[in-house]
Amino acid sequence: MHHEHHLKSSDTIRDIVIGMSDGLTVPFALAAGLSGASAHSGIVVTAGIAEIVAGSIAMGLGGFLAGKTESDHYASELQREYEEVERVPEQEKMEVKEVFANFGLSEKLQNEVADEMAKDKDKWVDFMMKYELGLEKPEENRARQSAITIGISYIVGGIIPLSPYFFVDDSQRALYYSCAITMVCLFVFGYFKSKVTGQPPFSGALKVLIIGALAAAAAFGMAKLINGK
Amino acid sequence: MHHEHHLKSSDTIRDIVIGMSDGLTVPFALAAGLSGASAHSGIVVTAGIAEIVAGSIAMGLGGFLAGKTESDHYASELQREYEEVERVPEQEKMEVKEVFANFGLSEKLQNEVADEMAKDKDKWVDFMMKYELGLEKPEENRARQSAITIGISYIVGGIIPLSPYFFVDDSQRALYYSCAITMVCLFVFGYFKSKVTGQPPFSGALKVLIIGALAAAAAFGMAKLINGK
Repeated sequence: MHHEHHLKSSDTIRDIVIGMSDGLTVPFALAAGLSGASAHSGIVVTAGIAEIVAGSIAMGLGGFLAGKTESDHYASELQREYEEVERVPEQEKMEVKEVFANFGLSEKLQNEVADEMAKDKDKWVDFMMKYELGLEKPEENRARQSAITIGISYIVGGIIPLSPYFFVDDSQRALYYSCAITMVCLFVFGYFKSKVTGQPPFSGALKVLIIGALAAAAAFGMAKLINGK
Repeated sequence: MHHEHHLKSSDTIRDIVIGMSDGLTVPFALAAGLSGASAHSGIVVTAGIAEIVAGSIAMGLGGFLAGKTESDHYASELQREYEEVERVPEQEKMEVKEVFANFGLSEKLQNEVADEMAKDKDKWVDFMMKYELGLEKPEENRARQSAITIGISYIVGGIIPLSPYFFVDDSQRALYYSCAITMVCLFVFGYFKSKVTGQPPFSGALKVLIIGALAAAAAFGMAKLINGK
């Protein structure tokens, strides 16, 4: 079967990518901004850690609730479809036919397909869920696992740009190290991210790097502006 | 057609929700954290604005690139499917049959469907894209619009918890106002978010409120801990 070759990035990788791209970018830019405002490294560390804590919780819990909402939504639509194939089977058959009419199947074939599908209610409902409503059955425990993966990835990503500020008191100097380390990490991260998602890795790495640099430069400039320096 | 009644939240609303839920939460928690570390309101404002700038760019550009990647991916898979229906039509027919076999259609009907579909290559490819690969054709200009909507929503959301720090010099006191205002906004936002996504609005509002409060409390506690107060 050739469709094994089509790319399929796993949900976990997607979660790592979500968490780490924001984790590498936002704390980096925040630290750059505060350095631009000539804050002491101590303040940068405090603000950075507060940001990482807040961001990882917000993103992790956000991911958790999104997953919960998705599975609740699936369950309620599933129940509704089961009710409908009982209550208005002819209308539901019409909807099956509609799906196939869109692919230019003949009226005759549409009818045959709809009749045959109606024989097995589970498969019928399954079809309506997937092809009429476009809903896939969410994985068990997906929400919790997703929350943890996103949260941890955010923390790991965020610690990297912040680390120089732990060791270098002068925030301006720490910023140079932070830029150097983070740029390298953004590039490497972008490279692997593009690899696993089947994109051209070099240009993908550049894109990720540019977002990070732009966000940091904008935060730096804005903070300088506010502080009138 | 009853399926008009199935909920369908538009992409724009989804983007506003994405941008605003993080915008309301992360800058709020960051400001709370810095207040916990007894930073002056001036520092909180600088850090907060740096965060909002960084966050809106990171999320906005992130949304833009995600959209671009999606449409590039769609285009390349589309081309591949067109090549495959030319090069290995029998295999592609097998795949059409497989989809229908999963719904318990008879061998005979599977063959008829596959043969009829093969008559119109555009519809055939369209079918493979949607039902074999699960890819929907992305909207034109979706990426750019999504980026702008997410970015602006993040800024609007982020300004709210920060606003008291503009006017109140004592960051501890500003924090009280910020909590009051932001809690109300999180609740109202959660309420409408749940309404438009078809969730029970009251419990949805509570969930959003709890995430925000947890993130802020954690950031506050962590910042206090670092500063040993």
